[in-house]
Amino acid sequence: MTKKYQIVGIGNALVDVLAHADDSFLTENGIEKGIMQLIDMDRAVDLYRKIGPATEISGGSAANTIAGAAHLGGRTAYVGKVKDDQLGAIFAHDIRAQGVDYKTELAAADIEQETGRCIVLVSPCGERSMNTYLGATDFLHPDDIDVAMMANAEWVYLEGYRFDGPDSHEAFSKANKACIAAGGKISLTLSDPFCVERHRDAFRAMIKSDIDLLFCNRDEMLSMYQTDDFNAALAQAAAEVEIVACTDSDNGAHILSKGQRWHAPAVPTEIIDATGAGDLFAGAFLWGLTSGHDLETCGNMGCIAAAEVISHIGARCEVDLMALFQKHEFMAS
Amino acid sequence: MTKKYQIVGIGNALVDVLAHADDSFLTENGIEKGIMQLIDMDRAVDLYRKIGPATEISGGSAANTIAGAAHLGGRTAYVGKVKDDQLGAIFAHDIRAQGVDYKTELAAADIEQETGRCIVLVSPCGERSMNTYLGATDFLHPDDIDVAMMANAEWVYLEGYRFDGPDSHEAFSKANKACIAAGGKISLTLSDPFCVERHRDAFRAMIKSDIDLLFCNRDEMLSMYQTDDFNAALAQAAAEVEIVACTDSDNGAHILSKGQRWHAPAVPTEIIDATGAGDLFAGAFLWGLTSGHDLETCGNMGCIAAAEVISHIGARCEVDLMALFQKHEFMAS
Repeated sequence: MTKKYQIVGIGNALVDVLAHADDSFLTENGIEKGIMQLIDMDRAVDLYRKIGPATEISGGSAANTIAGAAHLGGRTAYVGKVKDDQLGAIFAHDIRAQGVDYKTELAAADIEQETGRCIVLVSPCGERSMNTYLGATDFLHPDDIDVAMMANAEWVYLEGYRFDGPDSHEAFSKANKACIAAGGKISLTLSDPFCVERHRDAFRAMIKSDIDLLFCNRDEMLSMYQTDDFNAALAQAAAEVEIVACTDSDNGAHILSKGQRWHAPAVPTEIIDATGAGDLFAGAFLWGLTSGHDLETCGNMGCIAAAEVISHIGARCEVDLMALFQKHEFMAS
Repeated sequence: MTKKYQIVGIGNALVDVLAHADDSFLTENGIEKGIMQLIDMDRAVDLYRKIGPATEISGGSAANTIAGAAHLGGRTAYVGKVKDDQLGAIFAHDIRAQGVDYKTELAAADIEQETGRCIVLVSPCGERSMNTYLGATDFLHPDDIDVAMMANAEWVYLEGYRFDGPDSHEAFSKANKACIAAGGKISLTLSDPFCVERHRDAFRAMIKSDIDLLFCNRDEMLSMYQTDDFNAALAQAAAEVEIVACTDSDNGAHILSKGQRWHAPAVPTEIIDATGAGDLFAGAFLWGLTSGHDLETCGNMGCIAAAEVISHIGARCEVDLMALFQKHEFMAS
């Protein structure tokens, strides 16, 4: 029987605040280039005061992934928490407008925190430095996990960043259990090498117990297995999960499964804003997988989607990905 | 003595909500293509629910103009009203971050209205259909006009759209009086042909009494003087004000002053989103004028700035306009 959802994502519901900044601004303000750093409300206010004019676009790593799969026509749902404020309304509108089923209860009106946001500073080279104020998204609780929804998912997709949240491990476990019991599978993205640093033990435990498909990039993979030997780390991951999909920036992506290995080349593009590359890779990959494509094709689709999203500001895709798949002859036109 | 401000703008403080929409969506939802239409909160909520994923960028016609002049290094201030909510904070941040002096008092916390916004639907051809919920910006009152600021302005720039507001005529008159008494000059943009239709008498009266520089496009000019004869309308306007700067889409712009007439050619560009073309034309023109350039050069600078802003989504300029002026040899490099 066809399940209601191909993919259900769980993660940090954030609105991205995108602005340009040069390296001297990053240095002066103690911002680590190219990674995600967590900031509190005071720091968010101070940093926002200092940055130039900005653009607001819905973001959130897993939300970008799910929006990408929905854009391709995938049956999807998303779980992540916002507050009843204007940024929360923007987040909810944008993900629903993409066709994603999104019904997570709003955070309590009396909490001090507002809807979470990520101040994304885009360097002239396209590299992005993310400053995340979690706000309301940190309040995601096991009660927000609808077990019927998880049982109705072919795949659940977990955002590694959400491991930063107090109740998230329990929420993830509840989701995984309901999905697996109904014959579904679980995927996880490691999100960021520093996120791996913070949660390596929890990640490793969940990988061994629940994960069927691991998304990561080269740096996350090396951090995960605490080695400098990329191939050894890939082999170790491939021994623990059914599928490994590891992006490798302009080297494309490596896919490993059951003793086989494929390489998907990167699609050449001018990098305007690297935000969302990994997210869209995962979105297209999971859409491909749940639409009957082989793993190599899924990897190629992921690389095409990643190239699209880095060619413009913002981490949600802007052009018809299906048309790009057809152009690259991965889909019949 | 050099005045503190080269240009002070007064207009509708709005955040743009930009989404793509095809013609059938416009037709189904009764949206007139290519113009600005005023909508109430209920309509704004309903329309927002129906549109696809959107991007939020600070807008407002005169605010775009002033942001453009500030981007060029102009000494500028802006007057327009927002509420103490998240969209109001976004508007205030973005205009201040551009270097504009902005200190209009926030709308009262107990009004029902929120910060104003404009749902901009961008057609595949780049044409934009604007649906404006005025919200808090409609509460701009004569008390918001700081006469010392106006006396310190070489030019005041009035947004025609603000004539829709209940107390705005009085606010504009107060600003004009203070500026003129201190030796400053007044410019006005007609904003939109339907805006001209609504306020023709008020516009004509103010043009005759206060206006030194009139900005408009061809359609607004024809509507203003209720004729089909473009040259006759231009001549009539030129008889009433010192300078007429009339844009004419891909025919560029016509500048008339004291019996002379110049033509500034349009700069060829791919139109991604026409939002802000007239606004940035005025911003660059006024910056040029208050920086000692001749009227023909001001017109050319206006056309370059307009071409930049229509080459991307959003109505604030994204690239270094000064570098573009140098490239076109209107500035020494």
